[in-house]
Amino acid sequence: MSDAKHEDTEMDINLDREALTSLCHKVLTRHGFSESNVEAMSDALVAAEMDGCRSHGLYRLMGFVATLNNGGVVPDAVPVVEDTAPSVVKVDAKGGFSSLAFQQGVPELLSKARANGIAILAINHCVHGTALWVEIERLTREGLVAIACNPTQSYMAPYGGSQPLLGTNPIAFGWPRGDGNPYVFDFATSAIARGDIELHRRQGDEIPLGWGVDRDGTPSQDPAEVLDHGAMLPFGEHKGSALAIMIELIAGPLIGDMLSIESSEHDQGKGSLPYHGEMIIAMDPARLTGGSPQQHMLRSERLFDLVKQQGARLSSERRYQARQKHLEEGVTLSRALYDDILELAS
Amino acid sequence: MSDAKHEDTEMDINLDREALTSLCHKVLTRHGFSESNVEAMSDALVAAEMDGCRSHGLYRLMGFVATLNNGGVVPDAVPVVEDTAPSVVKVDAKGGFSSLAFQQGVPELLSKARANGIAILAINHCVHGTALWVEIERLTREGLVAIACNPTQSYMAPYGGSQPLLGTNPIAFGWPRGDGNPYVFDFATSAIARGDIELHRRQGDEIPLGWGVDRDGTPSQDPAEVLDHGAMLPFGEHKGSALAIMIELIAGPLIGDMLSIESSEHDQGKGSLPYHGEMIIAMDPARLTGGSPQQHMLRSERLFDLVKQQGARLSSERRYQARQKHLEEGVTLSRALYDDILELAS
Repeated sequence: MSDAKHEDTEMDINLDREALTSLCHKVLTRHGFSESNVEAMSDALVAAEMDGCRSHGLYRLMGFVATLNNGGVVPDAVPVVEDTAPSVVKVDAKGGFSSLAFQQGVPELLSKARANGIAILAINHCVHGTALWVEIERLTREGLVAIACNPTQSYMAPYGGSQPLLGTNPIAFGWPRGDGNPYVFDFATSAIARGDIELHRRQGDEIPLGWGVDRDGTPSQDPAEVLDHGAMLPFGEHKGSALAIMIELIAGPLIGDMLSIESSEHDQGKGSLPYHGEMIIAMDPARLTGGSPQQHMLRSERLFDLVKQQGARLSSERRYQARQKHLEEGVTLSRALYDDILELAS
Repeated sequence: MSDAKHEDTEMDINLDREALTSLCHKVLTRHGFSESNVEAMSDALVAAEMDGCRSHGLYRLMGFVATLNNGGVVPDAVPVVEDTAPSVVKVDAKGGFSSLAFQQGVPELLSKARANGIAILAINHCVHGTALWVEIERLTREGLVAIACNPTQSYMAPYGGSQPLLGTNPIAFGWPRGDGNPYVFDFATSAIARGDIELHRRQGDEIPLGWGVDRDGTPSQDPAEVLDHGAMLPFGEHKGSALAIMIELIAGPLIGDMLSIESSEHDQGKGSLPYHGEMIIAMDPARLTGGSPQQHMLRSERLFDLVKQQGARLSSERRYQARQKHLEEGVTLSRALYDDILELAS
């Protein structure tokens, strides 16, 4: 890694949005993903890369290909959209990545949310490796309010426990703001993302107390011990733990899909990207405010102004700044990452 | 207070469920609340008292009457149920307490959730003073999964800020478990409930760091400073803060109702119970699992078992233990509280 780091500073690669997309297409097509899957997955990876979220950007191509090589994903899956109730869209991803299944479910989700006021998109049997906020923004662009969540694998102990059981279960929310960028958050219900603990391990750094416990349930600052033998911890003590359990339930059994622990068992230690379900709720202000939706939605601008006036940060602002910068200047990939990706493409 | 405490130990009063209900009826009727409002409010107060949640139990009668005397609630409000979309029930509480509005909206909420898979109950223009979990349990008894939330008043700073802006915005969730008690949680998105800080003030105790800041935004352990001049803080840093903002938005502008700061302005410093909206989402497993709902819902039992096996606590278990105990032995009210209530009734 230290060699790679050294190279980074010498021969970084700058790519614009189009070049990033074309690189994703090349890698994924080379490995046999079908055209529609390639497009959906590339869109999600490039969106994350443009927003400065490297952990969900092109770096993920390695995980996608590793999961494919493990037999953990169906590269030419054709999702099946099912109409099980007037406010429900179920999409069976048929073992493919979630991105295409999401895209295929969106038209029905939009029409049901607009007709009925609230609707739910339940994606089943998908492999998950992309950021939820990308999907949330697809819905806020349509003027809808959206909430999305999914289980992952059993990495985390419930508050008061010490054994890995729950996923890092992310939850994301989006609120449209007219022509401006939406208010969006997207966070894991663990104290910290798993990737951040992995980064500490790679760099030989200790982790702060509160992120995890060792195999005996004792608070630990050793990233390897927490990842391999102990358990991660939830954010916000019993409250974050309860939210993680809620997500297990509503994006698992409620939609007829796996808990994080079932997803881990399904993986059989192969280390593939997790296979499970995902749920997205979409709500239409036009059917919920009870008249004058635009006027009511504008009340939120006062809230956002008052948050910023006291020096607090609105979720996603950093991502929007990164997006603007990268649109103007392109994204810089480290030479090491770029070489790894090129190798996957050849 | 110390005198009252002394009396408590000498002449506590034991009342069973029926006696508690009759006491509530007497007080509320005496102050002019209409029969249907009296019944709905009493049910909610007695449920909280039976569950050992004193802050939302009969103690609240004082707040109800004070709010009435301030002109902050309509005692004979007749809620109006509106059908604005196939998966939406809107109930205009017409300035009354939320309990009756909730009860009136339930039949339509049940039928819409069962028909469409997911439905939303938006209560507008209500005064709020009762626990959300009581409403959640009404829905889990029907086999539905439910989420409820509401703003309050601007007591809390967003993470990274120092001025009161957000409410303590509770969120509650319920998951039916066949004939057993449901999995339910109900918590404020503040680090601690406002009532707990008030209790510290009354007892002359310091509060722990992390609960609030003083007027300059500096972390404070002085409960009076935090309550009267500073601000409460969210749980779980930026994540809890983001959730509190989500609740402001979806239980405020999205349903055409007030933000916490608007509710505070509406109160004009009178200290009434807060006037705002409330939103409840109900989901029907039978329409979401995609076949074999009972089998899928049972997957959750493994999760609950594994939480308990590692010594972690499931939310609500303490409440169910209290309920069982109080059903068998009755509830003990302090003499001071009982005397205060009797005075209200005379």
